[in-house]
Amino acid sequence: MTRLQWRTAGESHGPTLIGIVEGVPAGLQLDVERVDAELARRQLGYGRGGRMRIETDRVEILSGWKGGVTIGAPIAFAVKNKDSVIERLPTPTNPRPGHADLAGCQKWGHRDPRAVLERASARETAARVAAAGIARQVLEAFGVEVFGYLTALGGVRCDPGAWDAANGRRSEVRASSEFLSLDPAADAAMREAVDQAREAQDSLGGTFEVRALGLPPGLGSCASGPERLTARVGGAMFSIPAIKGVEFGLGMEVAERRGSAVHDGIVPGGGAEAFSRTSNRAGGLEGGCPPGSPWWCAPP
Amino acid sequence: MTRLQWRTAGESHGPTLIGIVEGVPAGLQLDVERVDAELARRQLGYGRGGRMRIETDRVEILSGWKGGVTIGAPIAFAVKNKDSVIERLPTPTNPRPGHADLAGCQKWGHRDPRAVLERASARETAARVAAAGIARQVLEAFGVEVFGYLTALGGVRCDPGAWDAANGRRSEVRASSEFLSLDPAADAAMREAVDQAREAQDSLGGTFEVRALGLPPGLGSCASGPERLTARVGGAMFSIPAIKGVEFGLGMEVAERRGSAVHDGIVPGGGAEAFSRTSNRAGGLEGGCPPGSPWWCAPP
Amino acid sequence: MTRLQWRTAGESHGPTLIGIVEGVPAGLQLDVERVDAELARRQLGYGRGGRMRIETDRVEILSGWKGGVTIGAPIAFAVKNKDSVIERLPTPTNPRPGHADLAGCQKWGHRDPRAVLERASARETAARVAAAGIARQVLEAFGVEVFGYLTALGGVRCDPGAWDAANGRRSEVRASSEFLSLDPAADAAMREAVDQAREAQDSLGGTFEVRALGLPPGLGSCASGPERLTARVGGAMFSIPAIKGVEFGLGMEVAERRGSAVHDGIVPGGGAEAFSRTSNRAGGLEGGCPPGSPWWCAPP
Amino acid sequence: MTRLQWRTAGESHGPTLIGIVEGVPAGLQLDVERVDAELARRQLGYGRGGRMRIETDRVEILSGWKGGVTIGAPIAFAVKNKDSVIERLPTPTNPRPGHADLAGCQKWGHRDPRAVLERASARETAARVAAAGIARQVLEAFGVEVFGYLTALGGVRCDPGAWDAANGRRSEVRASSEFLSLDPAADAAMREAVDQAREAQDSLGGTFEVRALGLPPGLGSCASGPERLTARVGGAMFSIPAIKGVEFGLGMEVAERRGSAVHDGIVPGGGAEAFSRTSNRAGGLEGGCPPGSPWWCAPP
Repeated sequence: MTRLQWRTAGESHGPTLIGIVEGVPAGLQLDVERVDAELARRQLGYGRGGRMRIETDRVEILSGWKGGVTIGAPIAFAVKNKDSVIERLPTPTNPRPGHADLAGCQKWGHRDPRAVLERASARETAARVAAAGIARQVLEAFGVEVFGYLTALGGVRCDPGAWDAANGRRSEVRASSEFLSLDPAADAAMREAVDQAREAQDSLGGTFEVRALGLPPGLGSCASGPERLTARVGGAMFSIPAIKGVEFGLGMEVAERRGSAVHDGIVPGGGAEAFSRTSNRAGGLEGGCPPGSPWWCAPP
Repeated sequence: MTRLQWRTAGESHGPTLIGIVEGVPAGLQLDVERVDAELARRQLGYGRGGRMRIETDRVEILSGWKGGVTIGAPIAFAVKNKDSVIERLPTPTNPRPGHADLAGCQKWGHRDPRAVLERASARETAARVAAAGIARQVLEAFGVEVFGYLTALGGVRCDPGAWDAANGRRSEVRASSEFLSLDPAADAAMREAVDQAREAQDSLGGTFEVRALGLPPGLGSCASGPERLTARVGGAMFSIPAIKGVEFGLGMEVAERRGSAVHDGIVPGGGAEAFSRTSNRAGGLEGGCPPGSPWWCAPP
Repeated sequence: MTRLQWRTAGESHGPTLIGIVEGVPAGLQLDVERVDAELARRQLGYGRGGRMRIETDRVEILSGWKGGVTIGAPIAFAVKNKDSVIERLPTPTNPRPGHADLAGCQKWGHRDPRAVLERASARETAARVAAAGIARQVLEAFGVEVFGYLTALGGVRCDPGAWDAANGRRSEVRASSEFLSLDPAADAAMREAVDQAREAQDSLGGTFEVRALGLPPGLGSCASGPERLTARVGGAMFSIPAIKGVEFGLGMEVAERRGSAVHDGIVPGGGAEAFSRTSNRAGGLEGGCPPGSPWWCAPP
Repeated sequence: MTRLQWRTAGESHGPTLIGIVEGVPAGLQLDVERVDAELARRQLGYGRGGRMRIETDRVEILSGWKGGVTIGAPIAFAVKNKDSVIERLPTPTNPRPGHADLAGCQKWGHRDPRAVLERASARETAARVAAAGIARQVLEAFGVEVFGYLTALGGVRCDPGAWDAANGRRSEVRASSEFLSLDPAADAAMREAVDQAREAQDSLGGTFEVRALGLPPGLGSCASGPERLTARVGGAMFSIPAIKGVEFGLGMEVAERRGSAVHDGIVPGGGAEAFSRTSNRAGGLEGGCPPGSPWWCAPP
């Protein structure tokens, strides 16, 4: 069986982004509208140039299905760019800090930052969102759910209890926040931070959290470092250029604590379960992989 | 050309750890004593059960060289365990929190935590240190130097200026610290933290920093997410089970800053250089890869 | 550096074939007409349903270049199908022998051979030809030339001396043969074999030869089995479903010969060369990799 | 789950051969004596320098098991060399034809064939035999059996009906042949061929056949070329340096036949089976993968 894997291609202002997802099992009814919904969500967010003027990305499945059902073949897809103007755009005079411009020009020995930035662009993540929109449907068939949301922006932090408070209606709560957080009450302060930064012709940083529920115990491997789920997810997160820090569970805070305030107790379970956990400070990853359900009993 | 890569095998109390390093070019004079010195450094650190009783790990090169010079073949090595007692050790009654015990027992469907913990053990990193001791000599042939040191332990943080202050004699300074930091003046406070934790039968967290100097611009890729150096180094760091957070440059702090306080200016260079940088907040990684030298002009 | 590699996707009667080629260095002027010429050559051959009614495949480069020059990014391309009728085609009643129909239906647990055969189709090789048309231009930049031609069809064998006889004008000779051989004098007999088989509603087998000139010595590896050029090329050849046998040099005939009639002597070279070879029975591959130039002195 | 995979290291006259097999599931009782028996079989064969003086290779499992049962961790093993004399052996004056000597010396830019031949040696296959001896036990747990035997040597061909004739006692028949064929009646002629070649200070070629029974349908993939079982097995066969030709089923003979004399009919099955096959000319591989049982009804 081919491992579930993806590849993307395409430039920011080229004709199209292309992706190939391999290893999707045959027989999966693929819901393209849900992939489009993920692409639409990617384009949301206050301060993105105005919600009124949103370009609407759409995925076009080019292969790997028949009658809406996957056939075990590689799934190729396109996310077309509205403005395929790569050949007409000017060559920037200078490389920009915080981007790959300088690295690419030196690596390939030329002086055209555009030949670098067109690929090393945030636009590339649109292809990943489409690939993930397909992968998500594979995961769901195995009872795995993945949910991401904003937790801080421009110094404004969301309520740490927002995840629990939104239990049972998280998608709706996230959709009601202009910043895709689970704490819409923080929207006003974030809007102000965005407006002030924009006025100063500056930009803002932020954090987001991703939770995966229903992972089978030991997913990845606890016997081989590079196969650990922490290694694979951590590496994937750091493949997004803007990301400068990744934390699991308590994250960097474990450096400040004693072990007794870090580890999550294993206690005999009540009812049908053989055991339960007294906390989830590890982010559901022990020894680099999920310890299995029920792994979560109370917030950290 | 085979890519430089490694594999390890071996349990904590099995007869030996084994590693295979592939892709080492032929013609490299391999200094085994330096690899042993790295293994010895791994075993240092106050609170490790006493420096007096250190087991001395040694690497034994089993293949891939002739007359001390690499021949382009896979380099296999052994780091032998003193006590090969895996078959005589008792089976723990309970899985331990913070380890792979629970994940592994459920993944493989048995009730023997020892069959899990023997491999998912910190001892495995001894094989990685040996592999890295070989890889380091390859990197040096290309002018790349990698240096790691402790920056905080048990809440005691080293002087942020320690890197600069130790310029020109960093190896010596690190060797003079019982905690392998560049700030030996912090040793006393760290010793106290360790002693107190030990008295309370507890353990401590900490942070370390690794710096790589001399990386060629664009190493990895700025055109393909999974090949980005951030993705590969970040994934490698998270393959070490105990690590819960990884940061490049400012790390999580970028979430709190405006872009103008994050990016590193590119300015016309003085002297022979075409340009220089006004800061290095990005940790020498822009768009996921090294922007090239001179990338560093002043501390963040 | 990303290794030169390819992926394809797409069904026989889906909207398009898609390919992604990664690892092409930046700065290569890409000649798309030459790729189209390879696609056209793939569609040639007497008995293919009539040369008059040839569908003309064309490659469309979707990413990875700017102004006709590669930029170091993944090159995605499309080869569009004229008839995108996958959803309207009937489901075959029975799986066909000699195809993946039966394997796929059982693997994926359904009864629709079309869901299998659409991907496991000879049409997929069109995407490989396009990918190879790009890779060929990379190889040429390193002085490597690859040339394939028919050597037998339906029991009619071409003159073994055809390669030498066509020296200096091989492309022209091959283009002059309706069967893409280097021995157009054999065309008449082959046409007759094709006509007779067609009349009997049957098909024919054949052989072809591929020669690569200018390979650097030791390409691949002689130190690691899976990296040997024989392993990689042999595996690639066998990834084409119809291929049931692959030979290098003398091939299966070595089984009948003594070693002295198999090995290629190494003798002191005349002129500027340090050595030369008395024959090339090994197909230019010794120990699984090219022994370097001048490796060829006389026909086997 | 880590894919089942192997790596080897070690030189012909170095201290030891080393292998790592990854992806072996936990819970497999590993029979080391059977691995040793495979190593012993590798050392058999008339003309090998005398059966009396056989070095006895033994595998030593270094990791990945506990109490004789695999634990899901990488299995490292050693096959020690009796004469670890690599440092004392003379450097050959000249590279040998038919070996990697010339390729390696040019690839790595030196003049020491020993530094090449020590790794590119037939001795390396001992490590593969040990790895395969482990993998075989994994396959058996899934009902897959693999059996190899000699079919021709020095122009002497075994009876094509030997496979069928030996049904039910193939291991015993093979063990009774000095050449590990299923046709011991051919031993005398083969001995004579070996004796004559030895007298002439020459060597001989031969062929062998490997049959895998019980493969699940579609193993590998019929949707992705490089994953096809033909591609992976073919590549693996060609990773053995001496192999110059690989055939599946009829092999090169398909080039001489019409399709009707190549394909294997699919007919309604008698009894409990839904269908059966009229022949097995494809070698049990259609579209590059196994079409599933019952795939075999009568010899080609």
